[in-house]
Amino acid sequence: MPFEDLGFARVDHHRALRSFGPEVVYARGKTPDETASIVTALLGDGGAPVLVTRATQAHADAVLEVAPATGWHPRSGMLVCRGLDPAEDAGLVLVACAGTSDLPVAEEAWVTAEAFGCRTDRLVDVGVAGVHRLLADTERLQRADVVVVVAGMEGALPSLVTGLVAAPVIAVPTSVGYGAAFEGLAALLGMLNSCAVGIAVVNIDNGFGAGAMAARILAAGRHKPNGPDGPDEPDEPDEPDRKASG
Amino acid sequence: MPFEDLGFARVDHHRALRSFGPEVVYARGKTPDETASIVTALLGDGGAPVLVTRATQAHADAVLEVAPATGWHPRSGMLVCRGLDPAEDAGLVLVACAGTSDLPVAEEAWVTAEAFGCRTDRLVDVGVAGVHRLLADTERLQRADVVVVVAGMEGALPSLVTGLVAAPVIAVPTSVGYGAAFEGLAALLGMLNSCAVGIAVVNIDNGFGAGAMAARILAAGRHKPNGPDGPDEPDEPDEPDRKASG
Amino acid sequence: MPFEDLGFARVDHHRALRSFGPEVVYARGKTPDETASIVTALLGDGGAPVLVTRATQAHADAVLEVAPATGWHPRSGMLVCRGLDPAEDAGLVLVACAGTSDLPVAEEAWVTAEAFGCRTDRLVDVGVAGVHRLLADTERLQRADVVVVVAGMEGALPSLVTGLVAAPVIAVPTSVGYGAAFEGLAALLGMLNSCAVGIAVVNIDNGFGAGAMAARILAAGRHKPNGPDGPDEPDEPDEPDRKASG
Amino acid sequence: MPFEDLGFARVDHHRALRSFGPEVVYARGKTPDETASIVTALLGDGGAPVLVTRATQAHADAVLEVAPATGWHPRSGMLVCRGLDPAEDAGLVLVACAGTSDLPVAEEAWVTAEAFGCRTDRLVDVGVAGVHRLLADTERLQRADVVVVVAGMEGALPSLVTGLVAAPVIAVPTSVGYGAAFEGLAALLGMLNSCAVGIAVVNIDNGFGAGAMAARILAAGRHKPNGPDGPDEPDEPDEPDRKASG
Amino acid sequence: MPFEDLGFARVDHHRALRSFGPEVVYARGKTPDETASIVTALLGDGGAPVLVTRATQAHADAVLEVAPATGWHPRSGMLVCRGLDPAEDAGLVLVACAGTSDLPVAEEAWVTAEAFGCRTDRLVDVGVAGVHRLLADTERLQRADVVVVVAGMEGALPSLVTGLVAAPVIAVPTSVGYGAAFEGLAALLGMLNSCAVGIAVVNIDNGFGAGAMAARILAAGRHKPNGPDGPDEPDEPDEPDRKASG
Amino acid sequence: MPFEDLGFARVDHHRALRSFGPEVVYARGKTPDETASIVTALLGDGGAPVLVTRATQAHADAVLEVAPATGWHPRSGMLVCRGLDPAEDAGLVLVACAGTSDLPVAEEAWVTAEAFGCRTDRLVDVGVAGVHRLLADTERLQRADVVVVVAGMEGALPSLVTGLVAAPVIAVPTSVGYGAAFEGLAALLGMLNSCAVGIAVVNIDNGFGAGAMAARILAAGRHKPNGPDGPDEPDEPDEPDRKASG
Amino acid sequence: MPFEDLGFARVDHHRALRSFGPEVVYARGKTPDETASIVTALLGDGGAPVLVTRATQAHADAVLEVAPATGWHPRSGMLVCRGLDPAEDAGLVLVACAGTSDLPVAEEAWVTAEAFGCRTDRLVDVGVAGVHRLLADTERLQRADVVVVVAGMEGALPSLVTGLVAAPVIAVPTSVGYGAAFEGLAALLGMLNSCAVGIAVVNIDNGFGAGAMAARILAAGRHKPNGPDGPDEPDEPDEPDRKASG
Amino acid sequence: MPFEDLGFARVDHHRALRSFGPEVVYARGKTPDETASIVTALLGDGGAPVLVTRATQAHADAVLEVAPATGWHPRSGMLVCRGLDPAEDAGLVLVACAGTSDLPVAEEAWVTAEAFGCRTDRLVDVGVAGVHRLLADTERLQRADVVVVVAGMEGALPSLVTGLVAAPVIAVPTSVGYGAAFEGLAALLGMLNSCAVGIAVVNIDNGFGAGAMAARILAAGRHKPNGPDGPDEPDEPDEPDRKASG
Repeated sequence: MPFEDLGFARVDHHRALRSFGPEVVYARGKTPDETASIVTALLGDGGAPVLVTRATQAHADAVLEVAPATGWHPRSGMLVCRGLDPAEDAGLVLVACAGTSDLPVAEEAWVTAEAFGCRTDRLVDVGVAGVHRLLADTERLQRADVVVVVAGMEGALPSLVTGLVAAPVIAVPTSVGYGAAFEGLAALLGMLNSCAVGIAVVNIDNGFGAGAMAARILAAGRHKPNGPDGPDEPDEPDEPDRKASG
Repeated sequence: MPFEDLGFARVDHHRALRSFGPEVVYARGKTPDETASIVTALLGDGGAPVLVTRATQAHADAVLEVAPATGWHPRSGMLVCRGLDPAEDAGLVLVACAGTSDLPVAEEAWVTAEAFGCRTDRLVDVGVAGVHRLLADTERLQRADVVVVVAGMEGALPSLVTGLVAAPVIAVPTSVGYGAAFEGLAALLGMLNSCAVGIAVVNIDNGFGAGAMAARILAAGRHKPNGPDGPDEPDEPDEPDRKASG
Repeated sequence: MPFEDLGFARVDHHRALRSFGPEVVYARGKTPDETASIVTALLGDGGAPVLVTRATQAHADAVLEVAPATGWHPRSGMLVCRGLDPAEDAGLVLVACAGTSDLPVAEEAWVTAEAFGCRTDRLVDVGVAGVHRLLADTERLQRADVVVVVAGMEGALPSLVTGLVAAPVIAVPTSVGYGAAFEGLAALLGMLNSCAVGIAVVNIDNGFGAGAMAARILAAGRHKPNGPDGPDEPDEPDEPDRKASG
Repeated sequence: MPFEDLGFARVDHHRALRSFGPEVVYARGKTPDETASIVTALLGDGGAPVLVTRATQAHADAVLEVAPATGWHPRSGMLVCRGLDPAEDAGLVLVACAGTSDLPVAEEAWVTAEAFGCRTDRLVDVGVAGVHRLLADTERLQRADVVVVVAGMEGALPSLVTGLVAAPVIAVPTSVGYGAAFEGLAALLGMLNSCAVGIAVVNIDNGFGAGAMAARILAAGRHKPNGPDGPDEPDEPDEPDRKASG
Repeated sequence: MPFEDLGFARVDHHRALRSFGPEVVYARGKTPDETASIVTALLGDGGAPVLVTRATQAHADAVLEVAPATGWHPRSGMLVCRGLDPAEDAGLVLVACAGTSDLPVAEEAWVTAEAFGCRTDRLVDVGVAGVHRLLADTERLQRADVVVVVAGMEGALPSLVTGLVAAPVIAVPTSVGYGAAFEGLAALLGMLNSCAVGIAVVNIDNGFGAGAMAARILAAGRHKPNGPDGPDEPDEPDEPDRKASG
Repeated sequence: MPFEDLGFARVDHHRALRSFGPEVVYARGKTPDETASIVTALLGDGGAPVLVTRATQAHADAVLEVAPATGWHPRSGMLVCRGLDPAEDAGLVLVACAGTSDLPVAEEAWVTAEAFGCRTDRLVDVGVAGVHRLLADTERLQRADVVVVVAGMEGALPSLVTGLVAAPVIAVPTSVGYGAAFEGLAALLGMLNSCAVGIAVVNIDNGFGAGAMAARILAAGRHKPNGPDGPDEPDEPDEPDRKASG
Repeated sequence: MPFEDLGFARVDHHRALRSFGPEVVYARGKTPDETASIVTALLGDGGAPVLVTRATQAHADAVLEVAPATGWHPRSGMLVCRGLDPAEDAGLVLVACAGTSDLPVAEEAWVTAEAFGCRTDRLVDVGVAGVHRLLADTERLQRADVVVVVAGMEGALPSLVTGLVAAPVIAVPTSVGYGAAFEGLAALLGMLNSCAVGIAVVNIDNGFGAGAMAARILAAGRHKPNGPDGPDEPDEPDEPDRKASG
Repeated sequence: MPFEDLGFARVDHHRALRSFGPEVVYARGKTPDETASIVTALLGDGGAPVLVTRATQAHADAVLEVAPATGWHPRSGMLVCRGLDPAEDAGLVLVACAGTSDLPVAEEAWVTAEAFGCRTDRLVDVGVAGVHRLLADTERLQRADVVVVVAGMEGALPSLVTGLVAAPVIAVPTSVGYGAAFEGLAALLGMLNSCAVGIAVVNIDNGFGAGAMAARILAAGRHKPNGPDGPDEPDEPDEPDRKASG
């Protein structure tokens, strides 16, 4: 059976093989005991990473009892019950965040990427209204293989960063702000409408999703079953119509 | 000077060097003549790809006069004035779309990816309500290095696909639908809230953005200035707090 | 008089005859004592089911004092003060829910359906990102006469389920999620825009409404006054225009 | 192979067996020729109903050429290329609509239900502000096995009707109205928040979806594979906690 | 000077003369002491009614100390520091509310109307899903000079009531409901889009505004300075164009 | 039978007796012929006013053929097929509008009020940014029994007017404006949140509704069946709790 | 009388004295003849500037006939019927716009500022994704006394500019963009939530409002009646509480 | 290096030179200790103003310990750690607020303006429904160089004020109100759509932003590097097209 039924949850033991990456447990709405039970079941199965997100101290206490090697990151509420060691040639994920208040989301992103075996770098407090602070770090930005940009309020930082680098940029809107920020809606819309090329967006405050996407990107082209040969039945490219109308 | 001033536009000749990819001209709101002038200026400069998006037949006629080698894709309104040839080992971008009505956006995505030098594959009409049509293509999905999923209405296809592959998934909501689809808002929200891990979203109907993001992803780790050595000043990883509270 | 006036509420003693099903008391905004008074009045009248929804422990305590046979389901806040016993040939309502966090709403649905005399089955934790967990239960899904699907986040599960079964599907969006889930709006819009055929939607978190709708569906065609004869004045069917224009 | 690939669409020949009902072709965004090709492919396969929705006269002309027996309903844009004959004991679907402007959506609902083999009845112009017009038809309403209620503006009619009948009610909001109707949003929200018990909602203007849901409801309990025996592994009912807290 | 400056507020002593009705103090955001000071200032000036809305018990305690004759209505948080006695021939305001949970808002309406010198009547728990409970009170409804209808959820009651009476109807949406009620938005939109003729709407939960509007309506035509003579310079009525176009 | 069934509409011949005012036909979505048929049916019945709203010239032509005495107001699209003559002592409705662009809605309001037998006055182009233009007409405003205020953009005029008069004010938001006016939403929200006392709101652009409400207000207390005696079973007024808490 | 009544409009001849700047006529919704009449009336009165906004060619033709010296700017639809000549020491307003598509709104801003007597400068096509194009113009930006920034899509340019200059910045969101731009809402929210200090926002596409605000700013401190002496009754500054709590 | 890295924040020591005004620390989301550290770093550098916004008493205690000369304004949560003394000829900023509940936001505005070296005046409780209270202060309004208007609910006050003064007006919507005020959205939309000329808007509750914008406006034309000479390469003014079309 490809999954185990705990009654309140079905643990999917083959996910790491079938698709990619860790089993992740979303702690909100689960009791500490339920969370620890799921972690125990997952750790008993193979070597894929196991993470818990949005955990409280109570969740952490219960998990650390059953999995003492777990790393606990209270600012972001992340528990890394089992992570991967970065390979020698692991790609580099840079997480940049616009303001100090965006740090919990940014930490969720880099802890996730590290648990997936990526190397990480961080830039903090580089908002667009003081653009020289960002430009001073251009080289550091350009060393990254993937850039995650975390910003609330107007969410303008990803557009700026994307213009400075060749790497793909993952934008994370945060709920930081007040009034017409509407709990992150302003930043989300700003990022979706970016005039920059080479950017994609995850949900508001979803640092985990950005870190996991970064890890998938770095793994792209390595895990695919067909090896270097490509598709065996390649589609013919569209033949565009080169003639003008009349 | 890194850019040329045409009066109504500033052509940025160094963008391909500095960041990544083609100069792209958004035709909506520009006259055919203005569009052709910008294309002429861009083609005179180096070898980066040059694309026009959201073009009408009138734009195409004007551009084909000054750039006869241009490829014209009327369903998506794309003009490829100069594209890259795919390398031997170019990565594979698969574009899947939920219904026939999503085809214009899907074409915008694959034409863009090809112009950036990627190989592409396509899956059409694989909506979630007939999941066996999608599952029949699981192997083909798993051969791709990056998957772009285009869907309107409830926008559920990306979640499903992401669970089947290890590649990063770029989700493109479309404005296909009526009533409470609210011009693509339903699909956009659905994709942003996906329960799947390894997915990021671009603007409604933004096939170009998805194709360009896919190309950036495939190039990740190849173009970066620092070569294989990684950052010279790596940050120390956060030392998580492993102790339970009392 | 068809109703009794308690001052703060009018108890409708004929509803079970006139339309269908139990008297239901929405506890939020009522004191425990008010709730118990209404329950007492309703139990004194005939044999229709009597339910209380969104009850707290304090409501439960007050009601159990006046109606000791009441069943109390704290996870969903449901009190079944008087339910129907399922008939031998009672129809089967299957309640499927996408994640563990959706359980309170799912329980509200199945407790309601049972109180109305239906048999129930349940599937828990069958999200779309791991579609094989759902497909493994296809036969079980197909045995149901009505399927209730409960999901938050992107709300994609109902589309998928509807493609697998011939039974009518009632979709219940939940407020589970964060950021652009907007308290269940994303799931609601997703379900309303489902590309599947044979699906209808109730309010966010309205497990009670879904359970009651399921029970009405199973009773359809049994209680109607005209018996097997049908309408005495059937309308002529529309005569469609078969001719092409010109 | 369970489906046929037309290049621009995948025709699913097993849907009628696997799930329920007709193949439906959404004409908007397809050319008349594409529509006619899909219809031809579908008619060549078995005996399930085949419908086209949101068709224009041009679509109708193309389809009638390849399928002369098609019924064309121009008010709602419905083409019934192959319908089912109602059985002797077919259930009765009553479609009620609030105002004359709601007729196109109402017709979409009843034409669909008839194509699925249901008998239908209709009530037109029974808005809530003249409630005696509705009450005069109470008996007729109560003869129906399923009631579909179509209304724009404030969308209040379904609540009223649901209080008068024991049958399940499917509510269809329409985009009829102006100003703060916001293209059907007001009616949609009204119906989702109905205080009545036994009601579910489909998308704005989605008469087809309501008709199909009505047909599924009438078929509930007849087509399921397990016959009269029910599930072989019935779950134990939840054992509620009957004790008060202290 | 027509107003008195308390530093944190300007008390307008001529409002009752210039326009209409009581001075009203909105307690939310004011300290109990500030509230009591304003009340003291207002009571020292003439005989117009003086009300406090949205008061807590602490506000009430402070006000009762300086104005012991004040009436305190804790369910709605209303303080009537000085009210008018109803005249012999005072008009009758009927306040109807859909459910028990709407009572606080309904009380705010009738307490306000009484403080303005109106007679009042009340109907509680007359939701649209049990329309016979409302119809049983048709005569009582028709005795009123103005009807205030208070409802949450789908907000359908005002449409129904307006069809039964000749009096003007003031509709008050409440924030009662959950999910897609969106804190009263659904009821508000429903009431604004009512198909009934002779209805106007106030803000969500604004029972005070409805009561004050009812009192203004009953006073209409009595207080105006020009007496029975009407305007001295009546505009010529528009001369409509009676001729058809060609 | 209290209504006549035309097939596509049910004409309600008793509405004028049962509730109040004219039969009104909403022309949008009806053919000119259908409109003329309904008008013919209504004119054959008693003496109540008969109006058509949102008519085009084509509707007007068709109606004028069957009802030559009809008044046609093309700016607002109103047809007055049969109106009431104002009584000697008819009340005065003043319609004020903020800008020239609001005139079509304002005309809909005053034509309606006149058709109901009211006298009317008008003030045009009295926006809040030039408040002296409004103040110069204070006396004229104060002569009215009911004031209808029509405004788009920020919708601030009703608040200002309400502070100047003792009459009830009906506010009509219009869709005049651009950008963040959002088709009248800004004006609607502004009016609903007015800080003034004695104001109620109708739907965006609903001049007819405002005119009809004004007429109902002027008729309040005259038509009610119980004459001068008032309710025979007056409720006891709430006995407020005068005691402070401790 | 301070205003002239044209029947359909009230021309306010004292506005230029009382407040500031030109009479402006919003052409949308007015006929060419009405527009020309108002212009004629305004030109006959004093020397204040007279502008028409959102004019079509037909409006321009009618106005140029009665006021031949009018300047016509078709891209923005502006007519300057009478403007002020810039003084020797007139302040400098720089209008920067993010893309070519924003030009019509930008032109509306600078034509307005010039008509008010300001000097202007312009920067076109300086989007944030190519920040070096903007930085190359830093000195030019810093020469301005007021900066107007016009941008659609994510609306990030004003934040960036504000960090580079000491002048006040007026941000104008435009409706340029598609999908989740929601007709300028994304840009509007982005600008309102700017993390930069010294920025304020006008309505979507409101270039006129920005130009007029710029002119008011440059005039600040010059026109005020009290001259250099300041207020005669200055309020005492708040005495802040310097003591820590305990 | 133009900034100092505290680990959790980058202190920008050159901002006051490069752009304008004080360093401002947004306290929400920072610990008292972090806040005090940033303040200490900023005070050690030059003489620019240093402010903390949205501080709690705990923040104030920590800051007063390291910077005893700080002014603490608890109503608005403002800490002025170092302010400028107003110059002899400093401009005058008048802050007007509609109601007592708007005072915290208004105080944020005037404390900010004073810290930037402006003189200030204040008008409190001048809502539009009692317009004579506002008009009585017309002269005082006209003495100001810049007017800041703070209002919640319908947000109509800025339109009215702008019509009375020649100074630029900065409008600040507040979240004061309930129901359809939607946390300040109604006021925000009202202000953005103002029919008045010479007004711009900041975020909801953003008194700080308004005060800072007022200070920038008063400094306009004084600090710019190019002195009285203006731009050295002035653009040619657009030559409008004066000819009518044909």
